[in-house]
Amino acid sequence: MLIHQSHLFTKTRKEAPSDEAAKNAQLLIRAGYINKEMSGVYDYLPLGLKVIQKIKHIVSEEMEALGSQEILMSTLQNKDVWVATDRWDDDRVDVWFKSQFKNGAEVGFGWSHEEPITAMMKPHVVSYQDLPVYVHQFQQKLRNEVRAKSGIMRCREFMMKDMYSFSRDEASHSDFYQRAIEAYTNVFARLGLGHITYLTSASGGVFTDKFSHEFQTLCEAGEDIIYVHKHEKVALNEEVFNDQTLADGGWKKEDFELKKAAEVGNIFTFGTKKCEELGLFVMNAHEGKKPVFLGSYGIGITRLVGVLAEIFSDDKGLMWPAQVAPADVHVLALQDSVKAQAAAFAKQLGEKVDVLYDDRALTAGQKFAEADLIGIPWRVVISEKTQAQGKIEVSKRADASRTMQTTEEFLQTISS
Amino acid sequence: MLIHQSHLFTKTRKEAPSDEAAKNAQLLIRAGYINKEMSGVYDYLPLGLKVIQKIKHIVSEEMEALGSQEILMSTLQNKDVWVATDRWDDDRVDVWFKSQFKNGAEVGFGWSHEEPITAMMKPHVVSYQDLPVYVHQFQQKLRNEVRAKSGIMRCREFMMKDMYSFSRDEASHSDFYQRAIEAYTNVFARLGLGHITYLTSASGGVFTDKFSHEFQTLCEAGEDIIYVHKHEKVALNEEVFNDQTLADGGWKKEDFELKKAAEVGNIFTFGTKKCEELGLFVMNAHEGKKPVFLGSYGIGITRLVGVLAEIFSDDKGLMWPAQVAPADVHVLALQDSVKAQAAAFAKQLGEKVDVLYDDRALTAGQKFAEADLIGIPWRVVISEKTQAQGKIEVSKRADASRTMQTTEEFLQTISS
Repeated sequence: MLIHQSHLFTKTRKEAPSDEAAKNAQLLIRAGYINKEMSGVYDYLPLGLKVIQKIKHIVSEEMEALGSQEILMSTLQNKDVWVATDRWDDDRVDVWFKSQFKNGAEVGFGWSHEEPITAMMKPHVVSYQDLPVYVHQFQQKLRNEVRAKSGIMRCREFMMKDMYSFSRDEASHSDFYQRAIEAYTNVFARLGLGHITYLTSASGGVFTDKFSHEFQTLCEAGEDIIYVHKHEKVALNEEVFNDQTLADGGWKKEDFELKKAAEVGNIFTFGTKKCEELGLFVMNAHEGKKPVFLGSYGIGITRLVGVLAEIFSDDKGLMWPAQVAPADVHVLALQDSVKAQAAAFAKQLGEKVDVLYDDRALTAGQKFAEADLIGIPWRVVISEKTQAQGKIEVSKRADASRTMQTTEEFLQTISS
Repeated sequence: MLIHQSHLFTKTRKEAPSDEAAKNAQLLIRAGYINKEMSGVYDYLPLGLKVIQKIKHIVSEEMEALGSQEILMSTLQNKDVWVATDRWDDDRVDVWFKSQFKNGAEVGFGWSHEEPITAMMKPHVVSYQDLPVYVHQFQQKLRNEVRAKSGIMRCREFMMKDMYSFSRDEASHSDFYQRAIEAYTNVFARLGLGHITYLTSASGGVFTDKFSHEFQTLCEAGEDIIYVHKHEKVALNEEVFNDQTLADGGWKKEDFELKKAAEVGNIFTFGTKKCEELGLFVMNAHEGKKPVFLGSYGIGITRLVGVLAEIFSDDKGLMWPAQVAPADVHVLALQDSVKAQAAAFAKQLGEKVDVLYDDRALTAGQKFAEADLIGIPWRVVISEKTQAQGKIEVSKRADASRTMQTTEEFLQTISS
């Protein structure tokens, strides 16, 4: 894929908007990845959408490997299914956006989807043999948060991957729950966050209060506090950091230190209650009619964009890990006289990897500053100087090293 | 791609839900493509989502060929930008869903995106040289329709591809407008609807009242009426079917016949008014500060799913055109004894094309009836009888012909 920067409509900015306090949103707005619509509401611009698509691709692969099938549920939600489980009232769930149809009937906007998905399954899940079923979606959730102050990390509208498991019983649920933990671990490793992401057990807030876990990524801008073991890959949520837990794990309190973290994933065991309330039962030859066992599994896709921006950035701008970068290589043509060569090279490279090609009439200094801000992993500079040597200048955003290579050498590096 | 039908959670149904009057939704629900959440609100299940993805792929290619860049705007919309153009009041736009933030401030849910996209462009479009800009998105629109009675063809929540053009002046807008007409014509041709889709000029309702066109596909379930020329590929919208238009075109009234049609696409010229109201101006060395010229271009993605279901179906079920079918080939294994061969063949085939493989323990009659309902273009039957001949039975959903082929012969047919 090849994007000509002269064609990209987004402009970078030297200054972040004055009303944006979070580093992730400041950088993403300045570099033209997102636009702030309102507090906690952002639009995804071309480069931002590409980062999202790369994250989605990784998550999709891992969910499909679990045997999950992709669906897309509606944002408009039927009041009835939420009344059935006593989660319609604002006293029970405090993040609802609600409105009315023309006939005056109330309608809710999807902040989560356990109830509609459970109800949707009723014509499809009838017999014991129909289970297990795993489904997932990438969906824009709407949540009426009181405050939204962490940029794209806590939004009133955000993209979530939510997966739901329908199992025969607790034992088969637990097997899948463990496999989901492994799949999530793979996702965060592939995103370049494995070394700073911890599986913690948690109380589940409005969702559930047992058998739930969170994936917490160490991040100064995170809204959670976790206690991280100094020597082992273990962390405990604030809620469970107590003598009982420490004794259960055989840990010493002094081996843990307090860290700020962002919840990038969570997994919940709902049990059978919700399926009983919504009427999702299956027939079993031995036991007769039995309610289905439900689990749910979330990953905050756009929150991850924010976390990645917080962690992979410096004072000059963003520094995306290769697997989520909107392009693999940023090609900079420094003078008009080298544009013919640069264009041909960018085209050739674009057939193998994703390329952003800066073909604009700006100074070298402006191009370098913008490239630092945008944060593509590899940079190739083509100038009269490099051309005189019959080479290109190759560098990486993440370190200061520069080498002169032939185009063939670089094509080989990037393809391998 | 290979989907094992034993793994697909959706069940087909003999009867449509009693509250569903539209043929498209009846068939799509019975075949397990969609689920009815509420009147005018549907969920997209695995096969339905695949049809949507295939349509999106075709539309994406044509929009990118126009030079449009993909973005994704928020569903939550800022009241201010709609007040600025006098489209916030329910008297002006009667399809708003609205709600309130926790602080009491009103928020709208996106029924269209001209205003937010125009406002979003302000930091990016500053100079004459920044134009033109073309952007598009695939977005779930929410519209508070009084009635929703045509199944998935008129929904309160639906997927739209909306594109927006920002041009220097009317002349450059007109050039792009013509190119957009060609791209839309390509889209409908590639979807298999070219022969029954007409470009008609129209009044634009709440959008605009000049320089707008619709793409109307002949369809008995459509909500529009057009007058189609008996001999030429010409049709006129009901609103403009009058003596003046006929005289302008040099047509005779008696050469037209009334037909039901569905609006599958529309293109609008907004002119400069909206950009003036929202403050999107560019500097031009010769003329100073000038407002940008706006156009918008919609295609109803999920409406198209409904139109395709209406048109490509018979009394047995759906009959998808190859380019939008959820799979290319439906492989049916009729007995347990042939499953090893069928599974190996389905796997091999799935490396070249998209395959749905019926590996379930059902009677041949049940499998054929379900295959007719689901409507995959090619069908391959593997049974003890075909195995005895060393062949497979190949047929097409759209005609009754059946041939015996070797697996090699069929692989060659399908790959060519």
